[in-house]
Amino acid sequence: MNASSSTPPGEPAPRPRVVIVGCGFGGLEAARKFVGHEVDVTVVEKTNHHLFQPLLYQVATAGLAAPSIAAPARLLFHGDEDVTTLLGEVTGIDATARQVHLADGTALPYDHLIVAAGATHSYFGNDQWAPLAPGLKTLADAFDIRRRVLMAFEMAELEADPLRRKALMTFVVIGAGPTGVEMAGTLAEIARHTLSGEFRHIVPADAEVLLVEGGPRVLQAMPESLSQRAREQLEKLGVQVRLNAMVTHIDASGLEVKLASGPDGAGATSYRIDSNCIVWAAGVAASPLGRLVAAATGAETDRPGRVKVEPDLSLPGHPEISVVGDLAAAMSHVPGQPPRPVPGVSPGAKQMGRTAAENVLRRIAGQPTLPFRYRDYGNLATIGRNAAVVDLPTPFGPLRFSGRLAWWFWLFVHIYFLIGFRNRLIVLMDWASAYLSFRRNARVVADVKGAGES
Amino acid sequence: MNASSSTPPGEPAPRPRVVIVGCGFGGLEAARKFVGHEVDVTVVEKTNHHLFQPLLYQVATAGLAAPSIAAPARLLFHGDEDVTTLLGEVTGIDATARQVHLADGTALPYDHLIVAAGATHSYFGNDQWAPLAPGLKTLADAFDIRRRVLMAFEMAELEADPLRRKALMTFVVIGAGPTGVEMAGTLAEIARHTLSGEFRHIVPADAEVLLVEGGPRVLQAMPESLSQRAREQLEKLGVQVRLNAMVTHIDASGLEVKLASGPDGAGATSYRIDSNCIVWAAGVAASPLGRLVAAATGAETDRPGRVKVEPDLSLPGHPEISVVGDLAAAMSHVPGQPPRPVPGVSPGAKQMGRTAAENVLRRIAGQPTLPFRYRDYGNLATIGRNAAVVDLPTPFGPLRFSGRLAWWFWLFVHIYFLIGFRNRLIVLMDWASAYLSFRRNARVVADVKGAGES
Repeated sequence: MNASSSTPPGEPAPRPRVVIVGCGFGGLEAARKFVGHEVDVTVVEKTNHHLFQPLLYQVATAGLAAPSIAAPARLLFHGDEDVTTLLGEVTGIDATARQVHLADGTALPYDHLIVAAGATHSYFGNDQWAPLAPGLKTLADAFDIRRRVLMAFEMAELEADPLRRKALMTFVVIGAGPTGVEMAGTLAEIARHTLSGEFRHIVPADAEVLLVEGGPRVLQAMPESLSQRAREQLEKLGVQVRLNAMVTHIDASGLEVKLASGPDGAGATSYRIDSNCIVWAAGVAASPLGRLVAAATGAETDRPGRVKVEPDLSLPGHPEISVVGDLAAAMSHVPGQPPRPVPGVSPGAKQMGRTAAENVLRRIAGQPTLPFRYRDYGNLATIGRNAAVVDLPTPFGPLRFSGRLAWWFWLFVHIYFLIGFRNRLIVLMDWASAYLSFRRNARVVADVKGAGES
Repeated sequence: MNASSSTPPGEPAPRPRVVIVGCGFGGLEAARKFVGHEVDVTVVEKTNHHLFQPLLYQVATAGLAAPSIAAPARLLFHGDEDVTTLLGEVTGIDATARQVHLADGTALPYDHLIVAAGATHSYFGNDQWAPLAPGLKTLADAFDIRRRVLMAFEMAELEADPLRRKALMTFVVIGAGPTGVEMAGTLAEIARHTLSGEFRHIVPADAEVLLVEGGPRVLQAMPESLSQRAREQLEKLGVQVRLNAMVTHIDASGLEVKLASGPDGAGATSYRIDSNCIVWAAGVAASPLGRLVAAATGAETDRPGRVKVEPDLSLPGHPEISVVGDLAAAMSHVPGQPPRPVPGVSPGAKQMGRTAAENVLRRIAGQPTLPFRYRDYGNLATIGRNAAVVDLPTPFGPLRFSGRLAWWFWLFVHIYFLIGFRNRLIVLMDWASAYLSFRRNARVVADVKGAGES
């Protein structure tokens, strides 16, 4: 498919063509901004759905079914005739010819391009760890982790050897950022509550959940007092928190951890943890598309592979190309203040998507573009049942709280932002049912051998 | 794991050990019957869930999420300390040593064995068709079909060649039994309603849905008048019904069909249908476990591989082994009437499960066993929105109806029998939402390349 760009005489000038790569928070918000304007928008997405990633850990831990947090991308632009949705993988960008190339050979011409391809996991150069310790970015990842977690208990029930049984009942989460913390807390909850009374040869509550973190505290993006609260709540849920512990080796039956030495060089020590279920929540890298954009435009990337953008989110020398969301190394520009880096959270991606789209419309109208300004609505992280931490900026200084109230606050914020009324309702019901019964409603493993999932 | 069967002196005699293979309708009902009796029950299931198979086509056609129709097997016996659930695949039965062997090496001793391993698809000797035209028995099958259906529309949207586009938008269902009829009707509904307004290069309603049946009518287990009604409703939904059409060849881009010749031998003709999405709903065969049981016990199997059982569902010469559900070639024994074969429907499997368990308890109590008697509660099949056929036996003769009323009847019967209050509620809500909006809420493809699914 190769749209013609010549205009027959007598016809009106063609409408500007905007291509948006990715339908995560950034791409979706950008596309929505164009609805109703005289612009032809094409959204290219390599999955068929927009994913509400903040609740993906619930799919991985069998609390939610996938459709509760995933909406078909093209359904979101159902009545918007100006928006075309294409399922495809971007394999090349030709910044000179202004075309995006897809894996199936399609060439999409653009007048304006917004790249919102997001992030993936980083194993810090140890890519051989990927199959041993899966990360959590896509629904396929979530099903993989769900299967590993549930199958570990199933295999433990069949296992007579006590050492192998102990390894099957040891769950290790690497990285104590928001994803690692909520995974570890939820795994402990599953072991202590959800599976209680269902096994005859093992006691699920005997399972050990270890949260291994290289740094000195959990949730390092949070203020120190909330990190401390989060750690206490994790330990109360039964999670063993191992700080200053660097992972040096992972194999099929466990991992090796090296404790950082004290300031005097003493105390450095290594040990091994036998485990059949390891989850990677330690590193985030930009989508490989970042390098592709950089190569096509001469833009620079930072260490995690994010593309460095101008204040208005466009690329140096390529005002027709913008990069937003987790793929962008963007700064927030508040008048009178020095630029500050934008954190990799969903409100940031949404705000960038809107600004990039607004700037495209301004360019079309011949107006100057605006610098991006990040509005910080605060930071929250959940840990488990009745356990969360919240840090909200207010005109009177930060408001910080934790525990049950923070958990309810987190819950309502997340359900409020979840795409679509129906999804909100289903998730609310699932949670209400899980809260009252300690059950988890998506404990389905479609293929116990691991080829495919639900 | 190898439970000891010796009783130390002075201890009470060990309780009878019952092993149940399979946790479908038959196995689940049998296991439930033992709860509260002085019996140790072990349920062996090769997936981790009980599947409500009558609604599986809804998962395949993106109407329901998998967890809505699948309940964790061990959750169903949550508080029943006497019931042990094991996830395992049976690889051997030793009828002399009275042990069931699992793939992981576990040997399960039994005093009584109930085999309820169900059915699978049969390609009538053309097993090479399996990857080209998947059948629908498991959740993994359903995700495979969901992906193929949704991806066909996605690829058609990207396809410029009109012939290839037409093949992508041609859906063929082979076999017009209940599954084939509901698949075809729902596919037509998706094309005409669900996807309407979402594509820019194709018109989803242009999709052709063909229902290819070797016999002379659809729903051959139904009375002829209802077959006729069903066919009319299918055609009204936009399905092309091709009767007397035998599939002779399937490849990656389509299939060949041979029309049966007329009574005078004239009119026999073959033609080809180009299609990228073919679903197999034509043949059912017993689980391969049937041959294993037959080999171990000397029991006979019929052509589809079902095990021939005694009137009380046990095996000839092996009263301690029963076979129930789709795996059994069983007869219904009504006093004063000749024995009649039991149809392969879920009420039949449930009733057999209960009778087999009851007979085990009678044997333990030293009582004579009872012959199996099938109670026919009627026959229903759904076709699509507002379209179904119902055949109910009443004391005043059969009650037959079709159309909107039949559909509502079918809906409430199925939701009523769906496992668990929560699943019922979720499915009811999903259906209400789908009915009002024509949307389908599980249009998620986790892995568009086909390695894994949701």
